[in-house]
Amino acid sequence: MGVSVGIDIGGTGTKLGIVDDDGNILAKMEFGTWEFNVFEDYVDELGKLTNSMLDELGKSTELQGIGIGSPMGKYVDGTIDHASNLPWKGVLPIASLLKNHFDKPIVITNDANTAALGEKVFGGAKDFNDFVMVTLGTGLGSGFVSNGHLVLGFQGFAGELGHVNIGRLEGRTCGCGKKECLETYVSATGIKRTIFSLMAKRSIDSEFRHVSFDDLSTKDITIAADKGDKIALEAFQFTGKILGRKLAEVVMLFNPEAIFLAGGLSLAGDYIIKPTRKYMEKDILDVYRGKVQFRSSELGSEGASILGAASLVKGEFSK
Amino acid sequence: MGVSVGIDIGGTGTKLGIVDDDGNILAKMEFGTWEFNVFEDYVDELGKLTNSMLDELGKSTELQGIGIGSPMGKYVDGTIDHASNLPWKGVLPIASLLKNHFDKPIVITNDANTAALGEKVFGGAKDFNDFVMVTLGTGLGSGFVSNGHLVLGFQGFAGELGHVNIGRLEGRTCGCGKKECLETYVSATGIKRTIFSLMAKRSIDSEFRHVSFDDLSTKDITIAADKGDKIALEAFQFTGKILGRKLAEVVMLFNPEAIFLAGGLSLAGDYIIKPTRKYMEKDILDVYRGKVQFRSSELGSEGASILGAASLVKGEFSK
Repeated sequence: MGVSVGIDIGGTGTKLGIVDDDGNILAKMEFGTWEFNVFEDYVDELGKLTNSMLDELGKSTELQGIGIGSPMGKYVDGTIDHASNLPWKGVLPIASLLKNHFDKPIVITNDANTAALGEKVFGGAKDFNDFVMVTLGTGLGSGFVSNGHLVLGFQGFAGELGHVNIGRLEGRTCGCGKKECLETYVSATGIKRTIFSLMAKRSIDSEFRHVSFDDLSTKDITIAADKGDKIALEAFQFTGKILGRKLAEVVMLFNPEAIFLAGGLSLAGDYIIKPTRKYMEKDILDVYRGKVQFRSSELGSEGASILGAASLVKGEFSK
Repeated sequence: MGVSVGIDIGGTGTKLGIVDDDGNILAKMEFGTWEFNVFEDYVDELGKLTNSMLDELGKSTELQGIGIGSPMGKYVDGTIDHASNLPWKGVLPIASLLKNHFDKPIVITNDANTAALGEKVFGGAKDFNDFVMVTLGTGLGSGFVSNGHLVLGFQGFAGELGHVNIGRLEGRTCGCGKKECLETYVSATGIKRTIFSLMAKRSIDSEFRHVSFDDLSTKDITIAADKGDKIALEAFQFTGKILGRKLAEVVMLFNPEAIFLAGGLSLAGDYIIKPTRKYMEKDILDVYRGKVQFRSSELGSEGASILGAASLVKGEFSK
C-alpha cells in the first residue's frame, strides 16, 4: 500500500503522520519544535520518528514521498527561508537534508498552501478548480488554487494575504515589521486586539474587562457573543467587515468558486462568516454576486495540517 | 503557413487582423463597433472581413483559429456578458455565431487577459511564468499569469483589478456603479480626475486651468510635467502612490516576477513608474523586495490588441 508522510512544522510543535491514498492517517506523532537548537538534529529526529512509524506499519507500506508545511517553506528551492518564529536562522535546506534519510520525492511549501491543497486532495474542495483557503490562526494565512493548481509565484512565496495593508485605520504594528497588515485585525490575535481596542473606546460593560490579554481566547469571545456581550458582538462585526472587504478584492482578482475558512477563529461560525459575506458581497461587481460559496474546512482541526502536508506528494507536486 | 485571427472588440472601434506564428500582422482592418445595432449583423461583418483578408493572402495560409478580446468576454461560455460600453445588451453568444462562418477553434476572454497572453506569446514576457499585466487606458484592466497559465477564475471573470476598492478617499464614483474603484484614480480618466481635484484643492497656477475636462489628454499631462507644472507632477505622484500600494498587495498574493504596464497612461514612463515602484516596495514583505521587475509592454500600441487576441489560439487555449 502506497503511503505519504505529512510533516507540519509549527512555531510551537511539529506534527508528522503517515497518510494513505484515501486520506486516512495511519500513524502520527508530535514533538516540540524548540527541543532542538541545531537544525540538523531536528531533521535527524524527523527521519528517526518517520522510520519508526513506517516500521511499525509493516513491510506492506510503500513510501511515495514526503510533504512538508512550514512557515516560509519555499517550494522552488526545498528550503525554509528566514522564518521568524522557528528556532533556526537563515536558509534551512530541509529537503536536501531529509534526502539523506529517504530517497523519495520531498516537497515543501507554506502551511496555508498545504491547507489549500489538502482541502483539494482529501477535503471539501475536491470538485473546485478555483478556490481560496484562508487560515485564521495566530496569524492569517492563505492559499490560492487557480485552474486546479496552487498559485506559488516565481519565488514560491505567493499567498501572503495576511500581510496586505487594509488601509490606515488604527496603526496596528505587525510581527513582519509593517503596519496595518490584514492579520493584525483578522486572526485569533487580531480579534483579541479589537476586543481591547473596543474596551478602550466604549464605556459599556463587558465580561472581558475582568480578563487579561494573555488569558483571552477566541473561544471565550464566541461564548461571550452567545451570551450577548456587546463588545464581543461588535468585535465579530468589525472583524468580518475588514475580512469581507479584503475578500471582495480577492474575488475580483481570482474569481473563485468557493472561499474556505479554517483555523481557530473560523470555529466562531456565523459570528464571523455572516458579516464577512455581507461586506464581501457589497464590494464586488454584479457578475460575482451570490456566486461565491463560503465553506468551512472539512479536514477537521485534528489531522488537517498532516493531511495538507501529505497532499503535496500527490500529482503535480511530486518531483 | 498557419495563421490566427485576432479580433479586438472595443467600446469605440473593432480591430481585426491576421497574425502568423512569429507575431507578424499580415493584414488588418478596423471599423466602428457602433455601426451595427443588431449583434448578428456585426458578427456577419466580422466573418465577411476576415474571409476577405484571408482570401487576399492567398491559398497558402491555413486558418488555425480565432481569438477575441472583448470587455466582459467570458472564456468558459464563449460569450460576451452584459458589457456596459458595447451597443448590444445581455449575453452575446459570439463564439457559436462565428462558428457559422469558420469551423475552427474560437476563444474569447477580456482584453486585459489577451494583453497578458499576447505579451507571453509574442512580447516581452516569453520567459516569465508568473507575471501581471496592467493596462492603463480609459479604465484599468489586468491579466494574471501564474505557473505559465492565465488566471481565469471559475466564471472566467478573474483579473478585475480596476474595480478593487482603494480605501475611502474622495468618494469617486465608478462606471460600474461602485465607489472608489482603483480605476477611478489609476487610468487615463483617473489621472484627469486627480488633476481637477488638485486644481480644486490647491491655489497654485497650472496650465490645466485653461483646459476643459473633455479636452485634457494623458499626453498633455506628461508634457506639462516636462515643463515643471506642479499640478501635473503632483498628479503623477499621487496616482503612482495609489497604484504602487495596490500592486504591493498584488505582489504578496501572486509573487510575480514582473509587472507589465501598457496603455495610454503607461506612456508617461518614469513619471508614473517611479512613484509606483517606490510605494510598492515600501508596502511589501522583505522576501519580495527588489525582486519585481517593472516592464513596459513590448507589443507597441499599434497592433497589441490584435496580437493579444490572436495569442489565444496558441497552446492551452485552443479548443
